[in-house]
Amino acid sequence: MSKSSDPQTSHAQSSEVTAAVLIIGDEILSGRTKDKNIGTIADMLTEIGVDLREVRIVPDVKAEIVAAVNALRARYTYLFTSGGIGPTHDDITAACIAKAFGVALERNPEAVARLERHYAAGQLNEARLRMANVPAGGILIDNPISQAPGFQIGNVFVMAGVPNIMRAMLDGILPRLAGGPALHARTVACELGEGVIASDLSALQDRHPNLEIGSYPYFRNGFFGVSLVLRGTDEAEVTAAADELAAIIRRLGGTPTITVGTKG
Amino acid sequence: MSKSSDPQTSHAQSSEVTAAVLIIGDEILSGRTKDKNIGTIADMLTEIGVDLREVRIVPDVKAEIVAAVNALRARYTYLFTSGGIGPTHDDITAACIAKAFGVALERNPEAVARLERHYAAGQLNEARLRMANVPAGGILIDNPISQAPGFQIGNVFVMAGVPNIMRAMLDGILPRLAGGPALHARTVACELGEGVIASDLSALQDRHPNLEIGSYPYFRNGFFGVSLVLRGTDEAEVTAAADELAAIIRRLGGTPTITVGTKG
Repeated sequence: MSKSSDPQTSHAQSSEVTAAVLIIGDEILSGRTKDKNIGTIADMLTEIGVDLREVRIVPDVKAEIVAAVNALRARYTYLFTSGGIGPTHDDITAACIAKAFGVALERNPEAVARLERHYAAGQLNEARLRMANVPAGGILIDNPISQAPGFQIGNVFVMAGVPNIMRAMLDGILPRLAGGPALHARTVACELGEGVIASDLSALQDRHPNLEIGSYPYFRNGFFGVSLVLRGTDEAEVTAAADELAAIIRRLGGTPTITVGTKG
Repeated sequence: MSKSSDPQTSHAQSSEVTAAVLIIGDEILSGRTKDKNIGTIADMLTEIGVDLREVRIVPDVKAEIVAAVNALRARYTYLFTSGGIGPTHDDITAACIAKAFGVALERNPEAVARLERHYAAGQLNEARLRMANVPAGGILIDNPISQAPGFQIGNVFVMAGVPNIMRAMLDGILPRLAGGPALHARTVACELGEGVIASDLSALQDRHPNLEIGSYPYFRNGFFGVSLVLRGTDEAEVTAAADELAAIIRRLGGTPTITVGTKG
């Protein structure tokens, strides 16, 4: 939920810098592994003003990965992928990215050097060396945890699926990214039902088309309530709209609490 | 990870019954809310033999929702959506589904009756009545928690985003679904590096093209290891391949542990 007044248009105040995430892995689709990366990436991108617009999860099937990579990299400023860059037969992401870009998959000497430093003598077998295969033109992404690097090619950032490695890689990438304008947010919470306030909220959204206003019902400590999140690039408008909303809530018999940010 | 021997083909032993999930909501893309529904749906579908093949997360933007619904419902046996069916201005899923199917959005009398029973006199305002809007031809999905129903139209099942309501709705839907052949699984775990076993694992996959073999490295209690999951419809082949794999692990100096299922 949370949208501009006309749901037919794109985000009213969306930044120009957009992103998609592609999670690659049968284990997420079968339920065996519960994804933790989507939320991490969403948080980190939002913080620097990059607008995450779409997420897809696809299986370890070459045609599916190639099609998703090409659809998403054409449409958004950045594409972040996660998963499928380990040493086993089911790790096919690098080959799929090479195919999507129409370039060769090459053994990257710097990646080999990093693996050689990481593994004890005799341990760097052919399977592990596959982790040094990078599409031609790719730039390595550091892996401070287990060395096997990710890579960037064009606007696509290819990262590991293991959550702590993915996070470390993304931390290293963020300085490379162009961020959008900073967003300001206020959260107005109250213990009114979402349906009680819906009509006034819709009118408030109409008066402030530059803001995104989201409505998130909650059940906490035995009470139902709703957190109303206002976001926009103009902090003065965000705080003014939050004050308007607090007045509406009081008129409806509720007790509003305003907090800075989106976690209230 | 986890795939048939030829990653170009679809799943070697995939069932004929497939599904996609569409999560609708800006709050997931901004990171404010961490998704819990994908894992739940994946687990429940896997259990009844429905093969979840793709997940997408899109914002509360009409054109995006309509495009994703039409792409996914055409491609898979079932499409499950989650989110955007509440009473506020940002809840536009029902209208989008109607548009995707090219049918009218109608006020459903049975849905109105359920809301009337749920809300105290005077509480069922116009905003809440929006939750009774259902595309023409839609069949209600029960909501035992807060009454406001989801609906099924064609092969699309429209559910709430709140996790406990989503789960209750899906529980009610499952008996309507055609399941695929039951899958049998064994997990063989050991404290060898994934790269040590990768080459033998690839050969094992080649000898058993009817099985899916996935490799999932872990770090647990201070030790690195790998869980190797074998899945297939022929239980005898699954157990035979697990025994082969255990022998490979012993040869490589490891101590295999075989467990039934995929959680080992």
